[in-house]
Amino acid sequence: MNAASTPPAVADWVSRFGAAMASPAQADWKTLFGEECYWRDLIALTWNVITLEGRDAIAAMVETQAAAIAAAGFAPDDPALPMTDEAQGWFTFSTATARCRGHVQLRDGLAYILLTATVELIGHEEAGGSRRPDGIEHRAEKGRRTWLDRREQTARTLGYSQQPWCLIVGGGQNGLMLAARLKRLGVPALVIDALDKPGDGWRARYRSLYLHDPVFLDHFPYLPFPDHWPLYTSKDKIADWLEVYARAMEIDFWGGTLCTAARYDESKREWEVTVTRGGQTLKLRPKQLVLATGLSGARYLPKIPGAQDFRGRQYHSADHGSGEGMAGKRCVVIGSNNSAHDICVDLWEHDAQVTMIQRSPTMVVRADTMREVSKNIYYAQPGADIDLADLMFAANPFRPRTAFEKGFTDYLRSVDADFYSRLAKSGFNLWHGEDETGFFMAYYRRAGGYYIDVGGSELIASGQVPVKQGEIAQITADGVRMADGSFLPADVIVYATGYRPMSEWVGQLISPEVEKKVGPCWGLGSGTAGDPGPWEGELRNMWKPTAQQGLWFQGGNLMQARFHSLHLALQLKARMEGLQTPVYRSG
Amino acid sequence: MNAASTPPAVADWVSRFGAAMASPAQADWKTLFGEECYWRDLIALTWNVITLEGRDAIAAMVETQAAAIAAAGFAPDDPALPMTDEAQGWFTFSTATARCRGHVQLRDGLAYILLTATVELIGHEEAGGSRRPDGIEHRAEKGRRTWLDRREQTARTLGYSQQPWCLIVGGGQNGLMLAARLKRLGVPALVIDALDKPGDGWRARYRSLYLHDPVFLDHFPYLPFPDHWPLYTSKDKIADWLEVYARAMEIDFWGGTLCTAARYDESKREWEVTVTRGGQTLKLRPKQLVLATGLSGARYLPKIPGAQDFRGRQYHSADHGSGEGMAGKRCVVIGSNNSAHDICVDLWEHDAQVTMIQRSPTMVVRADTMREVSKNIYYAQPGADIDLADLMFAANPFRPRTAFEKGFTDYLRSVDADFYSRLAKSGFNLWHGEDETGFFMAYYRRAGGYYIDVGGSELIASGQVPVKQGEIAQITADGVRMADGSFLPADVIVYATGYRPMSEWVGQLISPEVEKKVGPCWGLGSGTAGDPGPWEGELRNMWKPTAQQGLWFQGGNLMQARFHSLHLALQLKARMEGLQTPVYRSG
Repeated sequence: MNAASTPPAVADWVSRFGAAMASPAQADWKTLFGEECYWRDLIALTWNVITLEGRDAIAAMVETQAAAIAAAGFAPDDPALPMTDEAQGWFTFSTATARCRGHVQLRDGLAYILLTATVELIGHEEAGGSRRPDGIEHRAEKGRRTWLDRREQTARTLGYSQQPWCLIVGGGQNGLMLAARLKRLGVPALVIDALDKPGDGWRARYRSLYLHDPVFLDHFPYLPFPDHWPLYTSKDKIADWLEVYARAMEIDFWGGTLCTAARYDESKREWEVTVTRGGQTLKLRPKQLVLATGLSGARYLPKIPGAQDFRGRQYHSADHGSGEGMAGKRCVVIGSNNSAHDICVDLWEHDAQVTMIQRSPTMVVRADTMREVSKNIYYAQPGADIDLADLMFAANPFRPRTAFEKGFTDYLRSVDADFYSRLAKSGFNLWHGEDETGFFMAYYRRAGGYYIDVGGSELIASGQVPVKQGEIAQITADGVRMADGSFLPADVIVYATGYRPMSEWVGQLISPEVEKKVGPCWGLGSGTAGDPGPWEGELRNMWKPTAQQGLWFQGGNLMQARFHSLHLALQLKARMEGLQTPVYRSG
Repeated sequence: MNAASTPPAVADWVSRFGAAMASPAQADWKTLFGEECYWRDLIALTWNVITLEGRDAIAAMVETQAAAIAAAGFAPDDPALPMTDEAQGWFTFSTATARCRGHVQLRDGLAYILLTATVELIGHEEAGGSRRPDGIEHRAEKGRRTWLDRREQTARTLGYSQQPWCLIVGGGQNGLMLAARLKRLGVPALVIDALDKPGDGWRARYRSLYLHDPVFLDHFPYLPFPDHWPLYTSKDKIADWLEVYARAMEIDFWGGTLCTAARYDESKREWEVTVTRGGQTLKLRPKQLVLATGLSGARYLPKIPGAQDFRGRQYHSADHGSGEGMAGKRCVVIGSNNSAHDICVDLWEHDAQVTMIQRSPTMVVRADTMREVSKNIYYAQPGADIDLADLMFAANPFRPRTAFEKGFTDYLRSVDADFYSRLAKSGFNLWHGEDETGFFMAYYRRAGGYYIDVGGSELIASGQVPVKQGEIAQITADGVRMADGSFLPADVIVYATGYRPMSEWVGQLISPEVEKKVGPCWGLGSGTAGDPGPWEGELRNMWKPTAQQGLWFQGGNLMQARFHSLHLALQLKARMEGLQTPVYRSG
């Protein structure tokens, strides 16, 4: 926009980078990238979600991709944007197929971190803004159809005489946001969910659950929450929003529909997906299959000797509704992550006698502290451009971010030192991760292992919810015997023991062979517990091509669902339109 | 904001006006207002919706109101706003109770048009933006209740053990927008509607109906349409939006609830409203009663001799669903306004033989021309501030607007001269109003008398839908005999003959005495057909105190519903909070 006032170092780098991209054979990457450098690409250069680490990886990628991608027109973006100063700035460019944005962070004039991201496909833009449809032509015409006629026809035919080009299994926030983007891109998609209505997944969770992220991180694409929306949203309110969103965005949604099997037909290059709907078994034949079934697979229930003999009530945390009616009951909650804590609080609030069994050390971060921190981020500013905010957040690849999170964890430990000290003294087994990089990294590495404290830690610190450490030896008719020989009498046992990995859905729905071929989902390959290497540098298999043609994964929290649904939607649209999408895979 | 670059003439006038408001006894109005001048006030100075015409009227109002209102702090607003130049500009001020905005248009340094409008009540602001609620406190607490607990309790108790402070009869866009504003203001309100669900009023209308206004005029408060929303919205899509909106805004809505009677208890200063819901008769006791029942009252069916003998199908336009199944049928549509035309088009599209009976001259304006015109207005600009746009639109009181609309009508007549000429030649009785001020003024004066052409006029001009002029003498078993003796054979007669006035609801629900006391609703008192004088200068009884304590009217199109629901909501909130609300009435 106003290139004149772009910081000169940034303008110069962008110009030289553009020249290198135009003639990669002549490029001297040492003059563009520092010794330590990262290039994170979101489907712009690589048609993949990938971070290249180091000059060699970058040179190899550019050599492979440059000709086909034809990136050009590199120009500094508006210097009034945030994250613009003498050592960093935004730029725009285009490829053979797309309009893209980039951000570079310099150290001594050389790129330390580079982000490139596709924003829209040229000639296949979303039907918004100046491209909004007219809705109607102002003339009489025999046989023309109204909006309702078309919606009713789609309801009658989609999945029957008309096959969806894309089938999305799972109608939570991930499935719906992706479907909304596909709708605006004109990609025929169908969302199926075993539950009846959008939001029912949230409704089924325990009554006291609220979102842990503040509202400004949680917006859905195209339809931001009204500005009186509470800072933290109840699970039932977000459930209603999912329903509202599906309706407002005209998402084609089949509730009460169970996906039982899926098989890829290599010759037809399409899926055959078996579903049951209203007692009827149907075969759907989409070209693309997206699993948006959530980060978790089936419930994980550890096999504990004697569990079958327990005379009280025992259930998985997923079946915990509310603590109502639990007054006076002796409740043992096995587990020490978010759900375990929230259920302990709920039971305590309903006058139960609660004990938590902690089997491994747990990270804790105070929601109130995170709230104070988050007040200062760009997302929270009035009038923030959410799309830009997402790019800003993305301009921090996982390797440098790991170091950043170590520092952030140190910061939290210092501001909440008294809190952590009290909690540790109470017998709670507190840690900050095996490399002390805290809960954010634990989320990316294994989607668990932490508690965002919304009140439970005070109950533990004050002894109102005692914590028992160690493994369980046996469950008896009336309680839990620990490996150290101690005994916890119990009327109720809650297994807050988590879920199986999401990749197991692939084995169940498709085949063990495809599950094995695709490999694990989520995790960075950090080599820490629950996240074996090798280092991947991005979340495995998420929002990008997998080893199985036509199979995609869409998952994560609301922020990730919003941001990465764009990249997945654009990849799907490009394939539907037959655009060249040369996928670059590293390693 | 940047007072330095406010045009000097505006800054000077605002400063002098502020001084006059501080010491009205010393004010010389001749030095502030021109000979011809208008001050439109939207509840800021007058707690009324009123336009004062001329210096004497202005002086009289200020003399009466100034002390109680205590307007102060007049300061030029951001000079970057639209409608800011050497002869006009925005300013802000406050009163004893409210934050307000103003706009002045100068002629030779004197105010020609002044707008003042309340934006929010001091200390009773809406719970949005930085005032958003937290939603939850991050600590364990016995007996605390979730969002769902509270919603369920409201559903159980509101209207039973807890009385709504405000009852809104009618759950169309008017009732819902007002309810949304009251919700954010913390005013307990209940919306009741005879139909089951929000939007059912739109769903019941004829299938081919689309909004006549483009999307950028139609936004609801707080939750703008996504930007892929079509330019013109189908009635079924807007119906869905009403349902979505009521859910998203947590509006307390009773569908399937008929209001049968209402009586104001002067001693208790509350209403007793009789409603039937689910077969049960209930008495509601709100302090305030808002009729949002639409601009129209009951269907108007003219008494035509012989109608009972007609052997075909005859029905009011409100009962027209679709032309499906009408192929080959001889259809006579009585009427020549919007509904009549739309139904003629629908019948023609379904291969019926359609004749329109036109009994009086009709204004026609081409939707496509309006669309071109509207592209340039501020509302249509990307990123337009809708609240500001509404104020800009309001800064044009009805007397000067009448002259403006005459000019605008002349403009439309010149750009569409060929169209109007063809239409008139076809036998259609075309006019532009008795004073040639066109369809906008007809809307304000009598909410009818025109057709916004979305295709019907071409059918008429080309003779595909013949038009028969004149009055009907008699309906026979098989057709319609006109006063001129001619006969139209008919299988179907559609009465697009309009509705009774909305004020009749008052007589029906409350009493003929109150109907008489309150007088007509809508209309400006222009002294033209359907809008008898005396001149009122604002829409009668709309969004402002009526002669019946505690009775209010909320109505109009989407733009008006959005804008004026703010003023009505603020008046209600002020009364609930016991603020001083001295109402100024002119004349």
